[in-house]
Amino acid sequence: MSANEKMNDPVKLSPGRVAAARIERFVSDAFLAVGLPAKDAATCAQLMARADLLGADGHGIFRLPQYIRRIKGGAVNVKPQVRVAREAAGMALVDGDNGMGHVVMSFAAKTAIDKAKTSGVAWVGVNRSNHAGPASLYAAMPLEHDMIGLYLAVGNANHMAPWGGVDLLLSTNPIAVAVPGTEGPIVLDMATSVAAYGKVKTAAQRGETMPEGWMIDHQGKPLTDPKRSAEGLLVPIGGYKGYGLALVIGLLAGSLNGAAMGSETIDFNADDTTATNTGHVIVALSIAAFGEIGDFKRRVDKLVREIRRSRRMPGVERVWLPGEQSRAKLEERSRFGVPIPAALRASLDKLAAELKIKTLGT
Amino acid sequence: MSANEKMNDPVKLSPGRVAAARIERFVSDAFLAVGLPAKDAATCAQLMARADLLGADGHGIFRLPQYIRRIKGGAVNVKPQVRVAREAAGMALVDGDNGMGHVVMSFAAKTAIDKAKTSGVAWVGVNRSNHAGPASLYAAMPLEHDMIGLYLAVGNANHMAPWGGVDLLLSTNPIAVAVPGTEGPIVLDMATSVAAYGKVKTAAQRGETMPEGWMIDHQGKPLTDPKRSAEGLLVPIGGYKGYGLALVIGLLAGSLNGAAMGSETIDFNADDTTATNTGHVIVALSIAAFGEIGDFKRRVDKLVREIRRSRRMPGVERVWLPGEQSRAKLEERSRFGVPIPAALRASLDKLAAELKIKTLGT
Repeated sequence: MSANEKMNDPVKLSPGRVAAARIERFVSDAFLAVGLPAKDAATCAQLMARADLLGADGHGIFRLPQYIRRIKGGAVNVKPQVRVAREAAGMALVDGDNGMGHVVMSFAAKTAIDKAKTSGVAWVGVNRSNHAGPASLYAAMPLEHDMIGLYLAVGNANHMAPWGGVDLLLSTNPIAVAVPGTEGPIVLDMATSVAAYGKVKTAAQRGETMPEGWMIDHQGKPLTDPKRSAEGLLVPIGGYKGYGLALVIGLLAGSLNGAAMGSETIDFNADDTTATNTGHVIVALSIAAFGEIGDFKRRVDKLVREIRRSRRMPGVERVWLPGEQSRAKLEERSRFGVPIPAALRASLDKLAAELKIKTLGT
Repeated sequence: MSANEKMNDPVKLSPGRVAAARIERFVSDAFLAVGLPAKDAATCAQLMARADLLGADGHGIFRLPQYIRRIKGGAVNVKPQVRVAREAAGMALVDGDNGMGHVVMSFAAKTAIDKAKTSGVAWVGVNRSNHAGPASLYAAMPLEHDMIGLYLAVGNANHMAPWGGVDLLLSTNPIAVAVPGTEGPIVLDMATSVAAYGKVKTAAQRGETMPEGWMIDHQGKPLTDPKRSAEGLLVPIGGYKGYGLALVIGLLAGSLNGAAMGSETIDFNADDTTATNTGHVIVALSIAAFGEIGDFKRRVDKLVREIRRSRRMPGVERVWLPGEQSRAKLEERSRFGVPIPAALRASLDKLAAELKIKTLGT
């Protein structure tokens, strides 16, 4: 049984939707066809299907054609020797050997969790990795061990500039933090820009204009036509603050680990042949090291209730905790399937023909 | 010689300014007068004078009357037994015994640095502490050991609400990160709101209106009259993103450490008698654990140069690195003194009379 199957027994697939288990099988078949070992293909497939279930549509099966293209182009190593390159009691540095980011980060998260069992907190840096999908996947891995997870990464395309500048030296470097609680975990997963670049591309496809505040042009003026996005910069949250945050996340996840940062960043959308040397950080914090686990969860639950019950602004139906909307989506998509737009299906059918694997089907 | 004296030999004090060494002596005298041990009084005085030199005007001598009032009210313990309450290889939990935050955090930062020398990375949580001044002070402490510092804290007054809500359950919980480089460190120090509450108070004093985006009222509409700030909420950076960031910083610095969070937060501006149980985190990352220190600094310097030399928007004179403006202020104020507005001087003269200590002088 696939890892996503247990939560994925759709009573009734909605039209245009596909069961996560089917996505997982298709993705696994594709990676097997280009030479990944079975275990690694399964890891990528499971995490990508989970990204789709969680509603991270830009990070699931949508990315498969690009990943396969980059593997075929020689940019990614299908048989990496992922290993701990350096180590001390409170940290490790993982060398991803240019493997798929999902494989490398699964190894790194396991390393952090294993170490934190004795060291209380373990900080694991990663270099020579690749795009690994949504940050929340990895931040959430420590949860089942009653640990908090913290994830940082350098993004794989620069769409931001230092505040006041126009050179694209920064990616929208994300941060994710997952905190266990008996009322469900709190899972923050955010990029450091107001809007993700994916949203810009979607607006362009739909012929819509963007709201002011998403992008600015080289004069610092609002850019609202998404077809002109190549002339623009994504706006960091809080202006200079988001710039600072993206920068220090990049210093911690990139520079400290000897991974790419600034002008070294390879645009993995445009380049199919160059290793990205992607850097990440995963920190696991064992709650038991800080105190009694039950006490901690009660404190978190009290806070969750305070937030849920807080008085609301007019027109606001619900005050959400970070991660609740993804969890709702996971439940809905586990029952009714993952939406696969026609354009995506066409590209996956083309990929199936190329790789001589079974199509995704319905 | 005081710790701030070496950088503080003003050739020519500007009118209305005071040498940092004088601030340090006055603050130390005040804390001695209310019973702090000499060493702790000196620690607080040195860090508060440094806050003033760095331009963190809301966190230096400006806070002294409030600190003294809270000590006299019994809210703060003048003779704390600050200690490591729990410990593992990669972490420690420091019990501040309700001492002055500066004393507690100096101990915690030293603990993190000492541990990181062998463990590579050390995460130190703190509870039962108090307001400790600007975040950057503590994030910067690991720098001279060729370490990166990361600091998180729960603020001491709630001015933010969960996104869509109106209950003041969140402080503008700050994050600071300090990274060494040969061209000077990069030091980010930011609260998770667009504007600090101090800016709102300043606008009110000056009879100015606030720009849209700083505060909203309970209807979610922009609030621009700072005299109505009690009816409003500070806006988190990036809307729901800044809310999520303030929340997870609070979970890490507060809830995990058994410190106050959410409705437990004591407003230290309004309350002079209750212990705040302030929580902080300081992480020290030894660069040597990750690789060769010189290589790292060269990578940082290359990035710094890329950012400094990047093309600029019209009207932008300079692209700043986080921390550069504070460093410029430190140099200027070390030479010409720290500005002491008349109202602040009056309150310090009053304090001197109360405590029977020498006035600040000129």
